[in-house]
Amino acid sequence: MMIDVAIVGASGYTGLELIKIILNHPKFNISYISTSKGDENLIDLHPSLKNVFDKDIDKTDPKMISKVAKLAFLALPHKTSMSIAKDLLELGVKVVDLSADYRLELDTYEKHYCHHDDKENIKNSVYGLPEFFKEKIKTTSLVANPGCYPTASLLALLPFVEFLDEKFPIFIDAKSGVSGAGKKCSHNTQYVSINENIFAYNPLIHRHQPEIKEKILHLTKKNLDINFVPHLIPATRGELIDIYTVVDKEFEPISHLKEFYKDENFIRIFDKPVDIKSCSGTNFCDIFAKLDGKKLYINSAIDNLLRGASSQAVVNANIMFGFDEDLGIPKIAYMP
Amino acid sequence: MMIDVAIVGASGYTGLELIKIILNHPKFNISYISTSKGDENLIDLHPSLKNVFDKDIDKTDPKMISKVAKLAFLALPHKTSMSIAKDLLELGVKVVDLSADYRLELDTYEKHYCHHDDKENIKNSVYGLPEFFKEKIKTTSLVANPGCYPTASLLALLPFVEFLDEKFPIFIDAKSGVSGAGKKCSHNTQYVSINENIFAYNPLIHRHQPEIKEKILHLTKKNLDINFVPHLIPATRGELIDIYTVVDKEFEPISHLKEFYKDENFIRIFDKPVDIKSCSGTNFCDIFAKLDGKKLYINSAIDNLLRGASSQAVVNANIMFGFDEDLGIPKIAYMP
Amino acid sequence: MMIDVAIVGASGYTGLELIKIILNHPKFNISYISTSKGDENLIDLHPSLKNVFDKDIDKTDPKMISKVAKLAFLALPHKTSMSIAKDLLELGVKVVDLSADYRLELDTYEKHYCHHDDKENIKNSVYGLPEFFKEKIKTTSLVANPGCYPTASLLALLPFVEFLDEKFPIFIDAKSGVSGAGKKCSHNTQYVSINENIFAYNPLIHRHQPEIKEKILHLTKKNLDINFVPHLIPATRGELIDIYTVVDKEFEPISHLKEFYKDENFIRIFDKPVDIKSCSGTNFCDIFAKLDGKKLYINSAIDNLLRGASSQAVVNANIMFGFDEDLGIPKIAYMP
Amino acid sequence: MMIDVAIVGASGYTGLELIKIILNHPKFNISYISTSKGDENLIDLHPSLKNVFDKDIDKTDPKMISKVAKLAFLALPHKTSMSIAKDLLELGVKVVDLSADYRLELDTYEKHYCHHDDKENIKNSVYGLPEFFKEKIKTTSLVANPGCYPTASLLALLPFVEFLDEKFPIFIDAKSGVSGAGKKCSHNTQYVSINENIFAYNPLIHRHQPEIKEKILHLTKKNLDINFVPHLIPATRGELIDIYTVVDKEFEPISHLKEFYKDENFIRIFDKPVDIKSCSGTNFCDIFAKLDGKKLYINSAIDNLLRGASSQAVVNANIMFGFDEDLGIPKIAYMP
Repeated sequence: MMIDVAIVGASGYTGLELIKIILNHPKFNISYISTSKGDENLIDLHPSLKNVFDKDIDKTDPKMISKVAKLAFLALPHKTSMSIAKDLLELGVKVVDLSADYRLELDTYEKHYCHHDDKENIKNSVYGLPEFFKEKIKTTSLVANPGCYPTASLLALLPFVEFLDEKFPIFIDAKSGVSGAGKKCSHNTQYVSINENIFAYNPLIHRHQPEIKEKILHLTKKNLDINFVPHLIPATRGELIDIYTVVDKEFEPISHLKEFYKDENFIRIFDKPVDIKSCSGTNFCDIFAKLDGKKLYINSAIDNLLRGASSQAVVNANIMFGFDEDLGIPKIAYMP
Repeated sequence: MMIDVAIVGASGYTGLELIKIILNHPKFNISYISTSKGDENLIDLHPSLKNVFDKDIDKTDPKMISKVAKLAFLALPHKTSMSIAKDLLELGVKVVDLSADYRLELDTYEKHYCHHDDKENIKNSVYGLPEFFKEKIKTTSLVANPGCYPTASLLALLPFVEFLDEKFPIFIDAKSGVSGAGKKCSHNTQYVSINENIFAYNPLIHRHQPEIKEKILHLTKKNLDINFVPHLIPATRGELIDIYTVVDKEFEPISHLKEFYKDENFIRIFDKPVDIKSCSGTNFCDIFAKLDGKKLYINSAIDNLLRGASSQAVVNANIMFGFDEDLGIPKIAYMP
Repeated sequence: MMIDVAIVGASGYTGLELIKIILNHPKFNISYISTSKGDENLIDLHPSLKNVFDKDIDKTDPKMISKVAKLAFLALPHKTSMSIAKDLLELGVKVVDLSADYRLELDTYEKHYCHHDDKENIKNSVYGLPEFFKEKIKTTSLVANPGCYPTASLLALLPFVEFLDEKFPIFIDAKSGVSGAGKKCSHNTQYVSINENIFAYNPLIHRHQPEIKEKILHLTKKNLDINFVPHLIPATRGELIDIYTVVDKEFEPISHLKEFYKDENFIRIFDKPVDIKSCSGTNFCDIFAKLDGKKLYINSAIDNLLRGASSQAVVNANIMFGFDEDLGIPKIAYMP
Repeated sequence: MMIDVAIVGASGYTGLELIKIILNHPKFNISYISTSKGDENLIDLHPSLKNVFDKDIDKTDPKMISKVAKLAFLALPHKTSMSIAKDLLELGVKVVDLSADYRLELDTYEKHYCHHDDKENIKNSVYGLPEFFKEKIKTTSLVANPGCYPTASLLALLPFVEFLDEKFPIFIDAKSGVSGAGKKCSHNTQYVSINENIFAYNPLIHRHQPEIKEKILHLTKKNLDINFVPHLIPATRGELIDIYTVVDKEFEPISHLKEFYKDENFIRIFDKPVDIKSCSGTNFCDIFAKLDGKKLYINSAIDNLLRGASSQAVVNANIMFGFDEDLGIPKIAYMP
């Protein structure tokens, strides 16, 4: 029997990726699609879906959703998500929220984003990084899907936290394809601005920095000094993370990674530096690491729109409904 | 019950695409993979397949293939294909050949390529453009998979041949992503040569020109004057075709196209110019056309590695084994 | 002695290119820079000029210009140019207008653009394609700088008009880098829309089509049937033109081109297809041609922002002031 | 009076950049060009120079060079340079060597490269980073032009060494355009391998790491712990450096940089992160820095082929001949 699901926020890149994945999913069925306006045509928004999938777009309406779907994916901007999630949960609809609204502790959220209107649910949400929160995801009604940078950074860093000293800073140099900036037009995401270019933005003040820090504290009780510098690169999708820090003893990082993640479906450990193209189009997080004396270099890659957003959201939905976590999840890369 | 198939020539881009499609195919199973050397490791050749699919690579051996597979896809250079195809056919293995070796009449082939060693089979091969040769594909043992440029050109042009005059030249301006040039290193396919660049190559003498001409003659008895100029563009995959000619009367080209292809799964007719990104990753051929007086402009797009090679090959295999032609064939684009 | 010049419309790409060229020009001095708002800072608009050139930006004011400059380059949108040009000419300032406002006959202009407010000057303007209008440019006060597509198309086509028949259509397939669409944000010029993509726009109805047709008629008295289809390609700058038609007799096109342009500084004839990278950063127009029987293929390349706009404007200014046409004009390509 | 110079190794990217700069130089004249084979044609090697500059190419011959040139630029692979430089110096020709052969102390060189055959001259060579070695460059006959990564790293790091503790590691995350890998074909520099991709290579073992370390030790007597990870990005030219470390006290890094470099022509200090496009085509090194508590982030950008190779070489030549260091050196970026 198929589970009916709603995709709320179908106009953006992550909305499209959700549609693409669920179309091939053997257990989820898209019963509802909406945008904030509701007056667009799906094929006008996403011409690539022509002859593949079409459906009327609604103006987002929680009551309507509760009548036709058991789960809603919210592919919305932060602040917009919280009001809709609140209504959906009251109406008995499970939610996987791709925005930042339920990812953080209330204090951290209000410090780095804005006032929060749904203080009840933020307390009970589960952070949707399956490798570390699988048991809680199974029973929750509200999954906060992680940010793309925190996903790739946490998966790279968490295996090594046992070797890290709180006094020593961790430096994360991140590189993202332009789709990570969303579909909205801006001067910085124009072709001419990006082509033959690369630049950092929001160095040391990006809002994904506290997300990384808080989740490590939550999981390991270590209060690490996370320093995060993201860059835009001339590529559409993909995200590469380079982490630099110092550990307290020498060990073999590759075999440690293989052991740490030996039961995981979506982590691949490489013996040489990873690249973004080999995991583009999939839910994999590829990881490499190297130790020079006590200096540790960790290197991870994900597809920012999939593992960093939409495919991870569907993995979370799989777990919430008791399916195998990799049911219908893309594993074959957009290669070459 | 699954049909065992062999992929001969697994090291190149089309070999990889065959593997990717068949991994998701509900009726075909990869029982054999080979390269000319046979000493490579599949994950070294295609690291993106790590944790997805691995298999020993053989050195191509028709006898061995005949023991383990009912069909072989030959993703080989022209000239190499003909000897292997000949042996396979004798041993009772069906063949979909992605090279040029069986696409043309013998005379045309020897004029534009080289001496042909398998004169028997070239006579009996079927040209694998499913929209036009479906009935013959059903019963043949040897499909010659069309070239990428002829696929996109013929699908664009054939609906309009009834309006064309043999005296009037047809001009085809084609643009291909760099993967169309294959995986072999060359100065022309280096990043620095292609990036921020575009150029024509082999203007009016490309070997796909006689292929287009011959197939139109074969299908319509019209001996058209085909003039073909291909270009390399700074993109990895995708192919755009622009055709310019004059017709003998005025008509509405979009509705003509829609009627002409009304029963086809893999043709999409657009009301505005097509782009390569919307069909990248799929077997679709997207077509637009416009008439200004009697001047006709036709515009088509395909994924050069899929509709122009590997996914079309699997469609042909589907037809050869009596399956629905779209069984397991990718329809969801690599978008954004 | 230096000639003081004004750059009106300094915020866009062609404004920046004008600044860059004139900074290195031995006879022109930038005495005035303006934008429509006048409240920007030049280094904020063009950070690459930091420590190279800085100057206060004025709000465009013809009277002020007439006090400080002998010539004004107008790098403005069409319709905006005409009012300013009119005032400047009355005040005795020479004008090189990079907009479309003075390029066409009045009737053609009003049919394809909008109502024209400066009917007097449009009659007397000179079309600034130096190879064909040099003598008139010498004595005019108003040069209408050609569009980028007409520049590359006319330079390719004009040498062959003597062999062309008015009854036979000419097909022009043009490919432009994204900077040709200007600096304004739009969905079509976002990185994600352009990368790994190519598409035609405004096929057979682009406003450069009548410009090409009218200039050929003016120069040769032949009323050719011009059919023009432009494309955006994933590159920042550069423009490639492919022209297809039929001639009335056979001849050797390369030697014809070399003879036709033997006295020109900025035309290079190549024995093989041209590419956009080799002339990027320069005022060159590179041309190749090939004849197959009576089918003619012509292939030209320019830098759309330089030969297609700003460097051609400065060549025109050189001629207007009696300097050598190549004085201070860039000839060394952005290569590799 | 013009100084005659030789360009040895004219076939590669840095050879072409040397030609381009010197063509516009008011005091240097190219009297000799050579390659290792000597049988190529300059326009075949660099078609963009057509109608701009042509000259017979010699097979490299030090005696011949000594007859026609006072200075030779060696744009050669390491190991090849040392034998030619030795001969040229004996014959009285000054040398700017763009290879690695004279950059390091003998021990460091032999540890990281190979046996050195010119032990005499390696002792006396001067490291051509003008901001720090200007006085020595004035009087030497042999300048070892720095590597591209060391140039951008040292210019970013040296102003802050006074605040650094030897016990604390310095992490350098570098990103280079593909031209940095040279013109030789390789799988890693094919368009398909680089497009939509990014990856690290030689992490923590790149040969530019000891070059950075040794020069800091030489200049400041501090033996810093340099950890260097380079990446290839999908761009032709440009190099971005991100440096992460900890300082021993708090200070204002931007004003410190402005003061430190206040007399320099080719250093630009920015108040926000730098990008590679704004300095592409120039000899500038653009720098930004930020301090968060005692964590220091430094960010620099250069054109890898110019400041990282050829324009810096000509700056060194300017200084060797007593000219202003910025004579004929490009300052206007390839923008947009």
